[in-house]
Amino acid sequence: MDAFQDHYPENVSHCFGCGRLNGHGHQIKTCWDGDESVTRFMPEPYHTAVPGFVYGGLIASLVDCHSTGTAAAAMYRHEGRDMDSLPEFRFVTGSLHVDYLKPTPLVELELRGRVVEIKGRKVVVETSVIAAGRETARGRVVAVQMPESFRS
Amino acid sequence: MDAFQDHYPENVSHCFGCGRLNGHGHQIKTCWDGDESVTRFMPEPYHTAVPGFVYGGLIASLVDCHSTGTAAAAMYRHEGRDMDSLPEFRFVTGSLHVDYLKPTPLVELELRGRVVEIKGRKVVVETSVIAAGRETARGRVVAVQMPESFRS
Repeated sequence: MDAFQDHYPENVSHCFGCGRLNGHGHQIKTCWDGDESVTRFMPEPYHTAVPGFVYGGLIASLVDCHSTGTAAAAMYRHEGRDMDSLPEFRFVTGSLHVDYLKPTPLVELELRGRVVEIKGRKVVVETSVIAAGRETARGRVVAVQMPESFRS
Repeated sequence: MDAFQDHYPENVSHCFGCGRLNGHGHQIKTCWDGDESVTRFMPEPYHTAVPGFVYGGLIASLVDCHSTGTAAAAMYRHEGRDMDSLPEFRFVTGSLHVDYLKPTPLVELELRGRVVEIKGRKVVVETSVIAAGRETARGRVVAVQMPESFRS
């Protein structure tokens, strides 16, 4: 699978949620499925709210990194550019909103993102969290291009 | 310190964010400081967005569990009851919103929560995330009393 995160420059690949160089982290992988972006993630047995259900913080984390990755990929696509071309696009989260619709069982999760808006340096992404075929949470992220001051 | 989470019944003490019985988790501890609730948390070196800064998913997780804990404590206080008295109050997250105001340096974080509304089974909590004396993120959680179907 050719994931968005595999194209992130090395200096922005240390994120706990999505950095391929963070050995402790989730290392999520996101790719396009038509106009939607898709991440699949299997929670660890200890990622619990109450036993058998996923804790909300993990859901928020997955929505966050899935959406900023989608924002970057969408911006490249919007400009008709390859994800390895320069200058690179990398996004941070301006705001994150998650509605928890029902308890999320601890099974493999699917996140499906839709680009709602691209405007200037901002991309808005809506993401559904699906567990066992049912949408259990819905997120909305306003992603903004990473300021120079945030780069290492 | 007598923390809210130390009073959670055993069957709801397995949350990755705040459960004292989750050995892999954050085990946050929250207590009152007057009308505000306070959690202090030292991120691990690998909880990074980019090196030196905390990843947004951790901030969201902390806001989430800090706020649901605050909601429970506020409900006991509202009813003039001790946190060990029955029936117990335990809250889940209906919605979580986080505004990331500026990059959060990887130092000990302080979360300060304020109860905005208590209405029926719902408590709204606003939480500031403070790093090195500056507010770097602000959250708003709508917490709702845990439905019976969610209990183990």
